[in-house]
Amino acid sequence: MGDDFDANLPSVRQVQTLIKDNTEVEVKLVTSDLVVGKVRWQDNNCLCILDHYDQPTIVWKQSIVFIKPKVS
Amino acid sequence: MGDDFDANLPSVRQVQTLIKDNTEVEVKLVTSDLVVGKVRWQDNNCLCILDHYDQPTIVWKQSIVFIKPKVS
Amino acid sequence: MGDDFDANLPSVRQVQTLIKDNTEVEVKLVTSDLVVGKVRWQDNNCLCILDHYDQPTIVWKQSIVFIKPKVS
Amino acid sequence: MGDDFDANLPSVRQVQTLIKDNTEVEVKLVTSDLVVGKVRWQDNNCLCILDHYDQPTIVWKQSIVFIKPKVS
Amino acid sequence: MGDDFDANLPSVRQVQTLIKDNTEVEVKLVTSDLVVGKVRWQDNNCLCILDHYDQPTIVWKQSIVFIKPKVS
Amino acid sequence: MGDDFDANLPSVRQVQTLIKDNTEVEVKLVTSDLVVGKVRWQDNNCLCILDHYDQPTIVWKQSIVFIKPKVS
Repeated sequence: MGDDFDANLPSVRQVQTLIKDNTEVEVKLVTSDLVVGKVRWQDNNCLCILDHYDQPTIVWKQSIVFIKPKVS
Repeated sequence: MGDDFDANLPSVRQVQTLIKDNTEVEVKLVTSDLVVGKVRWQDNNCLCILDHYDQPTIVWKQSIVFIKPKVS
Repeated sequence: MGDDFDANLPSVRQVQTLIKDNTEVEVKLVTSDLVVGKVRWQDNNCLCILDHYDQPTIVWKQSIVFIKPKVS
Repeated sequence: MGDDFDANLPSVRQVQTLIKDNTEVEVKLVTSDLVVGKVRWQDNNCLCILDHYDQPTIVWKQSIVFIKPKVS
Repeated sequence: MGDDFDANLPSVRQVQTLIKDNTEVEVKLVTSDLVVGKVRWQDNNCLCILDHYDQPTIVWKQSIVFIKPKVS
Repeated sequence: MGDDFDANLPSVRQVQTLIKDNTEVEVKLVTSDLVVGKVRWQDNNCLCILDHYDQPTIVWKQSIVFIKPKVS
């Protein structure tokens, strides 16, 4: 595996927690797009976000600006 | 081969599945361009997308923000 | 750990000081967003910023343009 | 040589074919500029594009979003 | 230390000279922000710029477009 | 030295030729700024451009989109 996926990193574990807890998140991207949904999986390069209709979006990590839990 | 193409990665396998299934996708790029078509091949650096007229566009992976299957 | 987290680097130590001192900061991002709050933790890839309501934002370091202490 | 120039990669070979065939291409860049012309050479870091007046533009690969053959 | 801080590089030495000489500089960033002030220190990842009120801004090197001495 | 400065690369040699020949160039940057002048030196990370008043601008290579000789 590449050097940007280290299960001991707090940020990687936080994303794992978001997956496990089915937390709805907002992912801000370099284009200023905001992808909203639940994180299904992550790997070295990508996150997969499922929207309200369970449609997947494969987000490249290189384009992520921030992630935050959606405040309900 | 470079370290960003690992056939065991979920994201790489997902793209391989998109290629095999001839799925129409939307590829969002850092310029906010949206390239629509079918993924023909991928390598370490690029994806090749064929549009409706079978014209190829070689997309640099470094510029990809997200990919999603086109909802018909 | 990756090569961009080196506790001997001045910049990493400065962020550690911001965390320890609970300093309110402004983080400017490549999208021109300004995230304001306190740095809770950092790792190789990310910073976590808590806003006034203690809501966390996980900021990808790749998207940081600058950080400065908020002038009160 | 660096690890992003691998003559076995499909994308590198495709660019070599564009050079050999004197194909007119459109190169989209991160600034949204579109450089149009023929690819003269490539190396690890750059492509050289000749416009209609044979003026060269040295394009940094880091800034390429996509390349496509110009449809005549 | 990482491979992007090499005290033998002209660019690194130039920044060291700017620090030593207390030169006022303009730092252009990818967001098109212009940070004006004196360079206090640099490391692998960052530059610290002090403005006229001695307020520090920690600039990520990844976001720097250019630096030039301010013409008085 | 880092792996992006290889005197055998065509692109590096071309820039060396621009320096030796005192060629006036246009350097397009990711912010869409265009820096015009003569290249004084290059290293792994930067180019130094002198404008008409011999004022230097240290351009980070990471921000370069393209370089072309200025057509007179």
